[in-house]
Amino acid sequence: MISRVIGFEKGFPLSNGNHFETYEVMLPKLNRFDLVVKNLAVSINPVDTKLRQTGKGTPQPHVLGFDSVGIVTQVGSEVSAIEIGDRVVFAGTTKRFGSYSESQVVDSRIVAKLPNGFSTDEAAAMPLTFLTAYELLFEKMKLVPEENQNNGAILIINGAGGVGSMATQLAKWAGLTVITTASRKESKEWSEKMGADHVIDHHKDLTKQLKKINYNSLPYIMILHSTDRYFDEMSDLLEPFGHLGSIVESSKDLNIAKLKNKSGSFDWEYMFAKTDYDYNIASQGEILALMIHLLQEKKIKSTLTKIIPGFSPDVFYQAHQFVEENNMIGKLVVHY
Amino acid sequence: MISRVIGFEKGFPLSNGNHFETYEVMLPKLNRFDLVVKNLAVSINPVDTKLRQTGKGTPQPHVLGFDSVGIVTQVGSEVSAIEIGDRVVFAGTTKRFGSYSESQVVDSRIVAKLPNGFSTDEAAAMPLTFLTAYELLFEKMKLVPEENQNNGAILIINGAGGVGSMATQLAKWAGLTVITTASRKESKEWSEKMGADHVIDHHKDLTKQLKKINYNSLPYIMILHSTDRYFDEMSDLLEPFGHLGSIVESSKDLNIAKLKNKSGSFDWEYMFAKTDYDYNIASQGEILALMIHLLQEKKIKSTLTKIIPGFSPDVFYQAHQFVEENNMIGKLVVHY
Repeated sequence: MISRVIGFEKGFPLSNGNHFETYEVMLPKLNRFDLVVKNLAVSINPVDTKLRQTGKGTPQPHVLGFDSVGIVTQVGSEVSAIEIGDRVVFAGTTKRFGSYSESQVVDSRIVAKLPNGFSTDEAAAMPLTFLTAYELLFEKMKLVPEENQNNGAILIINGAGGVGSMATQLAKWAGLTVITTASRKESKEWSEKMGADHVIDHHKDLTKQLKKINYNSLPYIMILHSTDRYFDEMSDLLEPFGHLGSIVESSKDLNIAKLKNKSGSFDWEYMFAKTDYDYNIASQGEILALMIHLLQEKKIKSTLTKIIPGFSPDVFYQAHQFVEENNMIGKLVVHY
Repeated sequence: MISRVIGFEKGFPLSNGNHFETYEVMLPKLNRFDLVVKNLAVSINPVDTKLRQTGKGTPQPHVLGFDSVGIVTQVGSEVSAIEIGDRVVFAGTTKRFGSYSESQVVDSRIVAKLPNGFSTDEAAAMPLTFLTAYELLFEKMKLVPEENQNNGAILIINGAGGVGSMATQLAKWAGLTVITTASRKESKEWSEKMGADHVIDHHKDLTKQLKKINYNSLPYIMILHSTDRYFDEMSDLLEPFGHLGSIVESSKDLNIAKLKNKSGSFDWEYMFAKTDYDYNIASQGEILALMIHLLQEKKIKSTLTKIIPGFSPDVFYQAHQFVEENNMIGKLVVHY
């Protein structure tokens, strides 16, 4: 089967002009658990702009897009829970053509069905950030993934970002006190809207600001920006037996020994590890089903703030400009 | 209350001769949860020989000894579960005078009662290594602390050491397949006696040896020797979402980013973190109660291999020589 896709051949900065192009590609044959999905909407994540710049990590031509809602048009031989015509939501994998495409192949185990009446765009804004926040809180830090079943406080560095917004909502749902960092007035307000109990300013001394609200140490800390810059201070702030998590690769070796005398843990979270390594893939479908449930029950809200309609190289260039240059708050969705 | 103790004033190498001396010290006033214990036997751990060399980390004069069995002679105002005359086992803290002493003060929440008929020496050999292995497996790596309730394999670097011997037994009890490393014939046999399913040689290529027994990666790895030397290879061997734990401080910064794309965790374990930071102290009493239970039910066995009788500077000098110089297998206990 052939699909029209929007991709590029070599990584490029926005300043070089628009190098997105339309291609027709042959989709791979379906494996037994695979689906073909006709995409309806895709959200743009920071990982999209990073991969557009580096041109690494996806098949040629590079077809990005890791958050999609679409309609199922074909199913593999062992797909049982999903049928042709179902509307599904997923974050996909870096191993296959992404969602800047009319149709794509996706493993049925990493998708969740959308109920009738549920907003396509609101759902499309969510999967990657929800999966990342969920896996870090509940699979890595080992909090209990149930409402109000946890105690203590979490500090989220860059709480107003995509993952930070979901982590704030999920941590609140799970019962934690949430302290986030933000600097601009709009991000501070956004983070409060996501449920943060306290928002402190990451352009000022964090340790001092925490002391002022009576926190000398924390059992859970998430670094969602500039791991190198925050590692030492966050190591000092971590409680004994605490968890220091990060999603942002460090560019230098870290003094991990700082955590030794308090029996600390350092947890990396990378949402694509499961599909990259074929590890416990079905858990991502289950996590997305919980996401839909929590959205329906209004326990969490979508982070969608902007929709751009269309499906063309220009639309994706414009969308990347928005995400990369505009200090955007919340998620942008391209609606086909 | 005054107690006779064996201590020293400045750290010393064994080659400088015996600088242990007998002192009489005033024991501190009892806090509400404290006990006074008249010691019967103490085991010598590698941490004892390290602290004797560096002279750091305990009050003056340095009175070491972190594994003891003794008889309770006084109880604080809020001690309820323990009575005068009870025989107790504990690993203590670096914050107070240790167990190279006729009597010492210890927090009742970090001790467990020994049943009648239970060997003083076999119990004294165990607490520090059991607590370390337990906390790393069940509190840091989050395995389930129940018999046969876990799957997968663990690799234990230096499996024949004190902590390795306990980790092997506890991991087997919990249901894991255990692969240990050892090099000498006697350590290999000892590790097998502790329950290791496979023992490989840490003087040869570990990755190749693991491949031969059909392990390309592992979900749990414990580094119990030379963290700097093993970190890179063990990071490569770790499964996605796996746990790499260590009890041995690294002397340089580590390339922790190696674990990022597999969502790996790095867990430090330091048994004294709880008493150092007054964190969840009572859990250590509970863990030691489980230890006694498992010993009684013959689910695990004591690692005791040598007893030296007496209570004098010469006895402790001889005991330190044994532990530091003799490639000792199993634990040495000084019986007063």
